[in-house]
Parts: sequence; C-alpha cells; structure tokens
Amino acid sequence: MSLEAEWEQADKDGVTMKAALVDIGYLGTTPCHYRANKIQCHLELHIEQGPLLEKVGKTVGVVMSVQAMKWFCVRITGTEGHTGTMAMADRWDALVTASRFITAVRDTAKKTGLGVATVGVINSDSSSMCIIPGGVNFIIDIRCSTDAMVEQLSSAIFAEFDDITTQESNGTAYTITKSWGLPEAKFHTNCIDAMRNGALAEVPESLIMDMKSRAGHDSAWTSQFCPTSMIFVPSKDGLSHNPNEYSSPEHCALGAQVLLNAILNYDERVKSGEFC
Amino acid sequence: MSLEAEWEQADKDGVTMKAALVDIGYLGTTPCHYRANKIQCHLELHIEQGPLLEKVGKTVGVVMSVQAMKWFCVRITGTEGHTGTMAMADRWDALVTASRFITAVRDTAKKTGLGVATVGVINSDSSSMCIIPGGVNFIIDIRCSTDAMVEQLSSAIFAEFDDITTQESNGTAYTITKSWGLPEAKFHTNCIDAMRNGALAEVPESLIMDMKSRAGHDSAWTSQFCPTSMIFVPSKDGLSHNPNEYSSPEHCALGAQVLLNAILNYDERVKSGEFC
Repeated sequence: MSLEAEWEQADKDGVTMKAALVDIGYLGTTPCHYRANKIQCHLELHIEQGPLLEKVGKTVGVVMSVQAMKWFCVRITGTEGHTGTMAMADRWDALVTASRFITAVRDTAKKTGLGVATVGVINSDSSSMCIIPGGVNFIIDIRCSTDAMVEQLSSAIFAEFDDITTQESNGTAYTITKSWGLPEAKFHTNCIDAMRNGALAEVPESLIMDMKSRAGHDSAWTSQFCPTSMIFVPSKDGLSHNPNEYSSPEHCALGAQVLLNAILNYDERVKSGEFC
Repeated sequence: MSLEAEWEQADKDGVTMKAALVDIGYLGTTPCHYRANKIQCHLELHIEQGPLLEKVGKTVGVVMSVQAMKWFCVRITGTEGHTGTMAMADRWDALVTASRFITAVRDTAKKTGLGVATVGVINSDSSSMCIIPGGVNFIIDIRCSTDAMVEQLSSAIFAEFDDITTQESNGTAYTITKSWGLPEAKFHTNCIDAMRNGALAEVPESLIMDMKSRAGHDSAWTSQFCPTSMIFVPSKDGLSHNPNEYSSPEHCALGAQVLLNAILNYDERVKSGEFC
C-alpha cells in the first residue's frame, strides 16, 4: 500500500491519520515515514542501563543485538467476600493466587536460567482492607537472548500457573493476553564495524567490548528497516529505571565523540562505494 | 475531663472540636455524646454477613459477642531496577517478597486454625511493567474469637515474614504498623435476654440460634459504654462485601419486628425495676 493510501485509511472510528493530523494542526509538508524519507542507516548512543561495562572496566560497548522480549497481561478472578465472616476454607481469593503466580514468575526464571522475568505492575479490584479481593491484574515482562527462549520461558511460567491453579482448586481462574513484544534484533555488520572504528579512534581496543543489549531501544525497531547498530557507555552500579541512574560526564562525552566518528566513518565508506 | 473541656482541646493544628463544628455550621444545641446524653442500652439489627444461619436453617441469630480484630500496614522496600538488564540473582524485588508474605498470611491462618487473615489492599510503587518494584504496601486484616488468639495469629504470621526475609536474603526489608483494632466485645446478658424474648414472640425456639459476630459493628463499640446486644437475619450464600449480598424481605421484616419486640421488652423490664 502506498504511503498516501495508508494515510487515507480510516480507523475503527472513521478517522484517517491525515484528518487527525490536520485536526491538531500537525500536518506538515515533509512526509515523516521511513518509506517516504529513506533512512540510510541508524546509529544510536545509549547508557548501558546494566552493570557489565563497569564490572570489567571497559568504557565503550559495541552492541551486536537486542534481546527478545514479551509482555503478558494476566487477569485472575475469584469471589469477593467479607474478610471477617468467610471461612479460610471457603475463599476464592484472587490476590493469594496472584501472589503465588508472581513468586512462580521469579522462581521459574531463576530455575530455568533462560532469561529474566518480572512483575512490575499489580492492581487489585479491592480498595478496602475488609474485602477478600475478587480480581487482580498484573503484567509480566519476559526477556531472553532469543525469541525461542522467550517462548520456552513463558511456557514454563504458564505451566507453573496451571499447577498452582490445580493445587489451590479454589475456584480462582485466570486469563493471559499478550500485550506487546519485540523480537530479537540482530544489528548490521556495516554499522557494527563503523561503531568499532569510531571507538578505536578514541580508546584502546582493551577498553572496547562487544555486547548484547538487554533493554529495548529504538534501534531494535529501525533494524527491521535499515542497517543499525548502537554503542553503550557505562552505567554506575548498573542502575537504570531508578532515581540513582548515573553515567559520568566523561563517559557521556566519549559516547558522543564515538557516535560522531562512526557517522563520519560510515559516510566515507558510503561515498567510497564500500557501503551501499 | 468534662465534655466541654474535651471540646475546647486543640488538636495538633490548634483547632478545637467546637471551632471545627462552628466552622462547618454543624454546632447544634443538643450535645451528641454518650456522657451528655446517656444511652440506656444499644440494640442493633444486622444481616449476618456470613453463612451460618442459612446453613442450619435458622431465621434469627442472637449475638453473644463480636470477635477481636486488628489491621496491620506492611511496607516492603527493595531496589528499583530495569527489568531487562538486572540479573535475577542481583534483584531486590519488593513485589516478590510481598507476594511470598501474602501467601504466608493465608497459609498461616489455615495451618494454625486460629482465625481468619486476609490481604485486601496492595499497592506497588511501580506503575511501569519494565521497572522492578522498589516498594510495596499492603494491609493485613486479622480476626479471631479472642484478643489472645489475634496476638497468637499475628505473631505466627510475622515469624513467617522473618523466615521469608532470611530465605530471600536479597536486601528487601519490611516494617509493620498497627493501623486499627477492635477488642473482643462481649454483649450484656440483659440485652441478650431481651433480644431472645423478642425473637421467641415471633418464631419457635428451634429457629433461633446463639452466635458470635465475625464482622465488626457499632455495637462492638457501644458495648464498652452501655448494655448492648444484636440480632442477625440470614444472608443468602453467606455473601457480604460483594454485589450479590442479599437478605429476603421476609427475613428483614422479621428482624425489624424482633428488634421492636426486644426494645419494648427491655423497656418494660426497666420500668418494672428488673433492669436498672
């Protein structure tokens, strides 16, 4: 489908992308789309958000790939009841089942060693301390080196959920909806090479490390459409998504210089005909 | 302290009860206080909110006492982190620890048979699926026949929390704050007797049952200041704090009639000098 035809397609409310942009005064003259304005390559600088560079005393990470990830929304239903009058044996407590599930998410990731699995968000239907919760929602974030490992780890976790439901045999039930996913992204050798050259112009090879990104990035998506790679600079204590996240000004400046070097290196090699 | 002196006492913001009532236009002429307007007795009708009357086919419950209850606020702290980059072994995940605690609350109540214990409310500091939760709050509701049993059950639960914290040895920590409590309330024999007479005037003795209230009620508080008792009518399927809570019009009308009979019976016995 052409870009214009795509913009003219109505959504379920009958609104086209073009009409929506006109409506908010944001329809410009330059098409903002990778097909209309082709991206030759995508080079990205980021803090590592993990502990590896710091741990081994390196300053630049050349990123080979981004690990695969999936999010699943879990809904558990039980029966609301009075915390004082409902006997323990008669309860269908959605929060107890959710708690066993959340513990199983962590335990299964540790036991299998396939990757990481986390529950960050939880919401109980009940806002009263004297109501047995009748429903609980939570979201699981699963990340592994490959798509196949994400499948393996999620299957292992859901098998635990089934076991727990059978053990409880307490009338609680659950549903799982896949919310979002990012397949494993392998970066382009040309971009990786330009990034490594950019780094070598600033620091000795002993301070450079090939690595995999364990966080998701814009580059994971652009890599589906154009040659892409990333570089990382160290994160203090590997902390990220935490108010104490920190990378030193020196490392940030080094990252910016390496990125500029890489862009110039890539550009020269396009001009020379080495890269197309 | 006299009632007037109590009203004139300033709170931590320097505001007296009397000034606050004047401020919102609610200072009336009749003192609304059990010491200024003495309550001779307190008789209360309620739906059972539990399954016992229905289960044994009775229609009126004469309530002897209200079980003891306590609420505890639990705060668990860990360390926020990135769900993709932080290895499973390095995590201080407050929600995993909270989940193990919540499961232990249920398991300990079932194992000891001392009473009921429930977590109805939970809140995670994180609202993002890609953040390892750094903090979680939840509230425990514990109810047992006696105050001593509430102490026993809460101690058993907190001992489990300590065991879990040691097993995890993952840097998560917790604090417990007592939020609210209601001591066991034993009702007055005069009121119980008037309630039983009121019931016997409407239904045969075989439909009347002596019982304990497992929910909290106004009567639990008034019983500390004046003779008090309650009657219960059946709750369908024992459901309460649930949208399907239901008591039949016939049972509600029977309860109202029994309550009226009891008030008249009590009143006559005060007039005759039997009750003072």
